[in-house]
Amino acid sequence: MIEPLVLKGFRDSLPGEEIPKKKIQRKLEDVFESYGFVPIDTPVLEYENVLLGKGGGETDKQIFHFEDNGGRKVAMRFDLTVPFARFLALHHDELAIPFKRYHIAKAFRGENPQKGRYREFIQCDFDIVGCDNAASDFEILSIMNSSFLAMGIKNVQFHVAHRGLFNDFLSSIGIEEKSVDVLRCVDKLRKIGKNEVKKLLVDITGNEEKSESILKYITSGDGHQFDETLDILSKLIGKETESLFRMRQIYSLLLQAGIADKFIYDASITRGLDYYTGIVYETFLTDIESIGSVCSGGRYNNLASLYTKENLPGVGASIGLDRLMAALIELKSPLVSDTSNADILIFPKPDETQKALKAAMDLRKMGIRTDVYLLPEKKMKAQYDYAAKNRIRHSLTFFDSSYIVKNLETRDSVTVDSLEEVASLCR
Amino acid sequence: MIEPLVLKGFRDSLPGEEIPKKKIQRKLEDVFESYGFVPIDTPVLEYENVLLGKGGGETDKQIFHFEDNGGRKVAMRFDLTVPFARFLALHHDELAIPFKRYHIAKAFRGENPQKGRYREFIQCDFDIVGCDNAASDFEILSIMNSSFLAMGIKNVQFHVAHRGLFNDFLSSIGIEEKSVDVLRCVDKLRKIGKNEVKKLLVDITGNEEKSESILKYITSGDGHQFDETLDILSKLIGKETESLFRMRQIYSLLLQAGIADKFIYDASITRGLDYYTGIVYETFLTDIESIGSVCSGGRYNNLASLYTKENLPGVGASIGLDRLMAALIELKSPLVSDTSNADILIFPKPDETQKALKAAMDLRKMGIRTDVYLLPEKKMKAQYDYAAKNRIRHSLTFFDSSYIVKNLETRDSVTVDSLEEVASLCR
Repeated sequence: MIEPLVLKGFRDSLPGEEIPKKKIQRKLEDVFESYGFVPIDTPVLEYENVLLGKGGGETDKQIFHFEDNGGRKVAMRFDLTVPFARFLALHHDELAIPFKRYHIAKAFRGENPQKGRYREFIQCDFDIVGCDNAASDFEILSIMNSSFLAMGIKNVQFHVAHRGLFNDFLSSIGIEEKSVDVLRCVDKLRKIGKNEVKKLLVDITGNEEKSESILKYITSGDGHQFDETLDILSKLIGKETESLFRMRQIYSLLLQAGIADKFIYDASITRGLDYYTGIVYETFLTDIESIGSVCSGGRYNNLASLYTKENLPGVGASIGLDRLMAALIELKSPLVSDTSNADILIFPKPDETQKALKAAMDLRKMGIRTDVYLLPEKKMKAQYDYAAKNRIRHSLTFFDSSYIVKNLETRDSVTVDSLEEVASLCR
Repeated sequence: MIEPLVLKGFRDSLPGEEIPKKKIQRKLEDVFESYGFVPIDTPVLEYENVLLGKGGGETDKQIFHFEDNGGRKVAMRFDLTVPFARFLALHHDELAIPFKRYHIAKAFRGENPQKGRYREFIQCDFDIVGCDNAASDFEILSIMNSSFLAMGIKNVQFHVAHRGLFNDFLSSIGIEEKSVDVLRCVDKLRKIGKNEVKKLLVDITGNEEKSESILKYITSGDGHQFDETLDILSKLIGKETESLFRMRQIYSLLLQAGIADKFIYDASITRGLDYYTGIVYETFLTDIESIGSVCSGGRYNNLASLYTKENLPGVGASIGLDRLMAALIELKSPLVSDTSNADILIFPKPDETQKALKAAMDLRKMGIRTDVYLLPEKKMKAQYDYAAKNRIRHSLTFFDSSYIVKNLETRDSVTVDSLEEVASLCR
């Protein structure tokens, strides 16, 4: 006998989890499609050097990699961004540009599992590649907003910033050469708080006044609306810059769309990753901010440059479905609590199985998702246990030529004469 | 620069392929759900010994396996059946029994790629576990029929047989001890033809008459209806057996459901795999039989016995989505040719982008999937090329306060005054 173990950091998805996961995925796909976005897929396994790029080193231990039977060094994808860059380099001639794509798929990391983090997880990415303008930046923000609306999440706030604007500011106070260290430090604001960030900034800049100025910059959005913050930043920088103009354009589009109140300019958002070059953003659920950002991304203007000389500017965002699921559970969303795949369950007596299978066929034709309990010889307790585990709301039993429909929550029964009436009781 | 290569035997899925693949998947999920089936998922990566069972040897070279960073021997799943057996053993206490589940996911094999076979492929499995009766056998067959109907495939024939019935027959002619060799030989009928099978049978049985008799048995369905064949087999065996009774029950359910004409009893269907113990079946598209079986399966009464002492009889089927896609392409199915994710594309002039983004929002609220061309400064050719590559049917341009909707197939234009009218032209 072999022990039926699952690897550390991996897990099975049982129906109670998989049903809502599929529902969420469909809702997201419907949103992407309403914007004309198209799906792609890439292999789980790729050449190791393709996935790691010039990198290697530390990342190595984080990814699943091995030598295949043909002696090739291969690795399992650890995100959907790198495979997308490779995909763009390989196929850009075949694609409609601007290329608006989404990709929902599993990725794998060998890191030590932490609370809520697994070695296998589902990413959901959407990007526009082939243009660098406010309209494409806006469209991604608009999809983010539509996605959370589609999931019934109203209390959401999008924190937006611009990498270029931060650089404009650092230039204005004469420390642009320290931007990498400063950005990395500022990124920690949420975690370590103002005082600690201030200390670190003094270490980096060696200047109390400049550190105070940076702190003022990154907290400039506090309590202000998006456009007010832009005015404050303009004054801090001392002039209107290209990045500022882009942000004003984006804000005007958000305003026109009637969704500006969900966006704030939060200059402390820098995103750790090197490849971002313009707008960056994170998404917080105001009822459970502690869960962290549930949707992040930004503009990158050189993503595929490792693989091609083609200039492919892009902007996009990524939703971690596992974290989103956790959030929806905490918010007690109906999306995750309604985990039934059947509207009604027929309980036949042992000699009624054939009749039950026929009634099921007829109900399905009327659009009613119908399950038949296939062990009619079992005791009632087993039957009701089956209904409860599958969270099915109605049961159907036969009585002569009548049908008894029972609401399994309220325990109320109704006797009707036709399957049409049964169907309408389930709707 | 790194060459953006994909591994041998793997491939990217571009939108033209991924859009129909997602549509097919949704249709199948909707069918499964209408029967109350629930989805599950399992990890791509598992312990090697769990996936290989007692096996090993030859299978070894066919699967992707390696040692992870923690020194564990792991492997990528090569089908969805073995992980399901492991899943059942681990979770049967938590599941509603009978457990009716489906699972659509990728599996991986290291075998040498052949025409239409890849190292990464999508399987779609559906099973009922926890009962051994005609009703559950029937329900799987019924879902198979509903699935092909949902995909608009009418010309389909399900070839059904029963492993036990074949054994009954072999006993009746006194060669039950050679059943494994005989079954393996009979399985080749479609490939090598009657004459070659006959020769092999003579080699196995050492008896001309018995070989002739087996050949008569396996071709007994030719030109006969399901129930006629059962009568012929009953005579060949010389008595009614339990397996025969089960097949008569199943036939009566198929008859009641009005789908019996799509099923034939084809005694040459044996399915190579050892784990089948009852009914077995394959599915052929009568317009393109050469493509082989597109949906196969059967009853297995000891699937999880490697991992648990719990008795978990099951019946199920598996659809190879890649082969099904190939079939739908060959059949010129609308499911695979309609590969657009947008109903209309707005072409703004450079100063109309803001107006276009607003109109898009409004059209989406009316349920129209709306794309906006985001490079308005490009030439007309680039714009129409974009529409063609995305196979979008309608374009929208602005003229003063009017809207011009162009059907991009017929090139006809209509001018209307409201977005409501634009929407109704797209429906």
